Amino acid sequence: MTDSFHMSPDDFRRHGHALVDWAAQYMERVADLPVQPKIEPGAIRAMLPSAAPEDPEQFELLVRDLDTVVLPGLTQWQSPGWFAYFPANTSPPSILGELVTAALGAQGMLWSTSPAVTEIEAHVVDWLVDLLGLPQEWKTAVGPGGGVIQMSASDSTHVAHVVARQLAVDRDASTDDVVAYSSSQAHSSIEKGARVAGIRHVRLIDVDERFALRPQSLEAAIERDLSDGLVPAIVTSAIGTTATAAVDPVRDVTTVARRHGLWHHIDAAYAGSAMICPEFRVHQQGVDGADSYVFNPHKWMFTNFDCSVFWVADRAPLLRTMSILPPYLQNAASASGDVIDYRDWHVPLGRRFRALKLWWVLRSYGARGIRHHIREHVRLAQRFGELVDDHPSLVRTAPVSFGLVCFRHVDGNGPTNALAEAINAAGDVYVTPSTIDDQRFIRVSIGATATTEQAVERLWSIIRDAL
Amino acid sequence: MTDSFHMSPDDFRRHGHALVDWAAQYMERVADLPVQPKIEPGAIRAMLPSAAPEDPEQFELLVRDLDTVVLPGLTQWQSPGWFAYFPANTSPPSILGELVTAALGAQGMLWSTSPAVTEIEAHVVDWLVDLLGLPQEWKTAVGPGGGVIQMSASDSTHVAHVVARQLAVDRDASTDDVVAYSSSQAHSSIEKGARVAGIRHVRLIDVDERFALRPQSLEAAIERDLSDGLVPAIVTSAIGTTATAAVDPVRDVTTVARRHGLWHHIDAAYAGSAMICPEFRVHQQGVDGADSYVFNPHKWMFTNFDCSVFWVADRAPLLRTMSILPPYLQNAASASGDVIDYRDWHVPLGRRFRALKLWWVLRSYGARGIRHHIREHVRLAQRFGELVDDHPSLVRTAPVSFGLVCFRHVDGNGPTNALAEAINAAGDVYVTPSTIDDQRFIRVSIGATATTEQAVERLWSIIRDAL
Repeated sequence: MTDSFHMSPDDFRRHGHALVDWAAQYMERVADLPVQPKIEPGAIRAMLPSAAPEDPEQFELLVRDLDTVVLPGLTQWQSPGWFAYFPANTSPPSILGELVTAALGAQGMLWSTSPAVTEIEAHVVDWLVDLLGLPQEWKTAVGPGGGVIQMSASDSTHVAHVVARQLAVDRDASTDDVVAYSSSQAHSSIEKGARVAGIRHVRLIDVDERFALRPQSLEAAIERDLSDGLVPAIVTSAIGTTATAAVDPVRDVTTVARRHGLWHHIDAAYAGSAMICPEFRVHQQGVDGADSYVFNPHKWMFTNFDCSVFWVADRAPLLRTMSILPPYLQNAASASGDVIDYRDWHVPLGRRFRALKLWWVLRSYGARGIRHHIREHVRLAQRFGELVDDHPSLVRTAPVSFGLVCFRHVDGNGPTNALAEAINAAGDVYVTPSTIDDQRFIRVSIGATATTEQAVERLWSIIRDAL
Repeated sequence: MTDSFHMSPDDFRRHGHALVDWAAQYMERVADLPVQPKIEPGAIRAMLPSAAPEDPEQFELLVRDLDTVVLPGLTQWQSPGWFAYFPANTSPPSILGELVTAALGAQGMLWSTSPAVTEIEAHVVDWLVDLLGLPQEWKTAVGPGGGVIQMSASDSTHVAHVVARQLAVDRDASTDDVVAYSSSQAHSSIEKGARVAGIRHVRLIDVDERFALRPQSLEAAIERDLSDGLVPAIVTSAIGTTATAAVDPVRDVTTVARRHGLWHHIDAAYAGSAMICPEFRVHQQGVDGADSYVFNPHKWMFTNFDCSVFWVADRAPLLRTMSILPPYLQNAASASGDVIDYRDWHVPLGRRFRALKLWWVLRSYGARGIRHHIREHVRLAQRFGELVDDHPSLVRTAPVSFGLVCFRHVDGNGPTNALAEAINAAGDVYVTPSTIDDQRFIRVSIGATATTEQAVERLWSIIRDAL
């Protein structure tokens, strides 16, 4: 046996126990860390040596740097005071699932390269069809649709645009003429996904006073493009836009999409998690008319990034677009047609065992546990909205939607920006303002795993004191 | 405080310690598990309940299912007997890095959303420029190039094709006319990346007797396409093809690419890791003429999937293609131009702290430790090649290249397939055969973290006994 630089299993045990303790302690003290680091660009790099070490370093030094280099430069997304963007939840069972996934190091590109990776993913994603009240035909076990875990909603939305473009090109359209649609409030991933897919025409459609897409405007835009000889191919509805969590009229968009033969993609990246509570499914009425749907358990379902679930109502066009089978990937199981080969469902070939953490979250919380926490976040948002409504200096700029409350200072952008700065200056809470039609507003997004009533009360006290 | 379904930090400690022990034990026993599970399609799903549990399950039940449901259905990619495909390495420091990344749950889409995530990534990827002997201008700290961690080589190669397509379209080409090139031996991700990017013409160029791209054939293909009014946009060279680890003539391809204004992308997904040893850099001579380069530390550099490093020689066209800046992502740091916002370097917006595990691997092994293990794998491959050459029933079908040995039975496809089946029937080793020009051959890919001289001797004894 030659010299080895590998860490022994016994040293792995020792360091692993220390890091589990470090992670538990991080959970216990994250509330006390500043949510946003006070740091200048380049400050972290300046602490690092200019070259990789030639010789092995003691593992204890690496762990020490977590406290001296990493944490001082980290934004604490897991803080109970996290009210910025949308949540990007972790949870204890999910973190432990990631540990095991890393240790197994299995690749699930084909069923045959690790059957359990594929089958547990297909099964757990089918569970979610029932949990979210989605059409039965979207289950891989039923068909013709099916679901897959992708890295992000951006990837899922990009894939939807690629498939829609390919369907248009298959009908003899020039790629140059393909058109994609969404509301002006849709997430930037739609414009980006379309552009990356080579779609040169993206129409951002008017919204109504609740920031939801106007179907008549969509219809008019499609007809204008048709009369210009262009090829309308795909429209995306949002269930929960980024700025205000607005909900597009899914059923009406389906009607327009069907009339003109467009692919209808639904972006429920954030709000999809709420569909585990039946009372919120009113927001996805008509979902059975969609061609694809994405939601991110890594936002609001206590499952670590990356875990974005993407469903198609019919998997045939997806597989036709994405499948290339070279000799080194051919195998008896794939040839039989009896198995799912998830490499044909997205751009990457390699894929890790992401379903494990999702499986563990669903089992560890139970559907009841997830419902409880989502309802609690929504309750806190409703209550916070009432506090805003009752305050003479504040005005809501959109309906409270799911866990999101949007408001501004009555006196306009200057005082609104000043208020946002005062909130973030407190250090233990964090909000990210946004802008619609040149009007600034503050978003309070309630949904971090660690967020409690107490954290929301703390935020409110900071706001009240700053006014 | 309301009821909580969250696992407490103390329970996390307890279950975390148990799972660290489970993972250490997995390392100790993986050699004794069958590399390939003997399992029928659907067998894993049949063990799972048809619906997610309504109530929380005991965490001990989840852990128990690792042994009863997961392992029996898993392909053991981390076995010392892993000689299939290419390696997909884990290592103890990398697994522990994944644990911490999961616990921190930070998002690095913008510098401002977690400065340490971006700066450590940029810095460690710059370290790799020196470690692999790549051009200094590819460092983010030098420019105009830079590197980023992507999910997979397929994603990186796809992005290269998107940028090249965009450059062509910006020069007024129709997307329909864009052409991409690679050798007939290139990885399927090139054909797939081109297709996903909307490139409708992909030319697979002839190879020579060593399975390397013929530059004259590339030149001829480009001239044919130009005379047909098409728009040649990108050529990919492979440093280490999938079937035989063949190396394309990088410098000659650059000459042809420059003459006709094509983007030159290099796919060194597998073999790039070997460039940490100066003696292998002869295979990337002329790399300074490339426009982009991808290699996967998650293959042969002891870093868990996903970790694919993608460099561009000039980041301007990449950022121009991929950047979209909505109001909710605007911030002072981005506006200053002093920071890297990695969301503009790929399709996804969200991104986890993947650099942590790579940083830990480089520090825990040191450059010397990684060199040692890669040289040891190559030495074992050379020795295995000699055993093949000395055996009257076997003939090599390609030069031994890096850690890969390709050979067949002298009597052709039937006996070659039978030999592959006999090898895999042993259970504790695994090879994946491939095909070139209807000729079957066996690939022995030596490079798993746990693979030792003893494992290679075991493989050879199985082969010898089967002949």
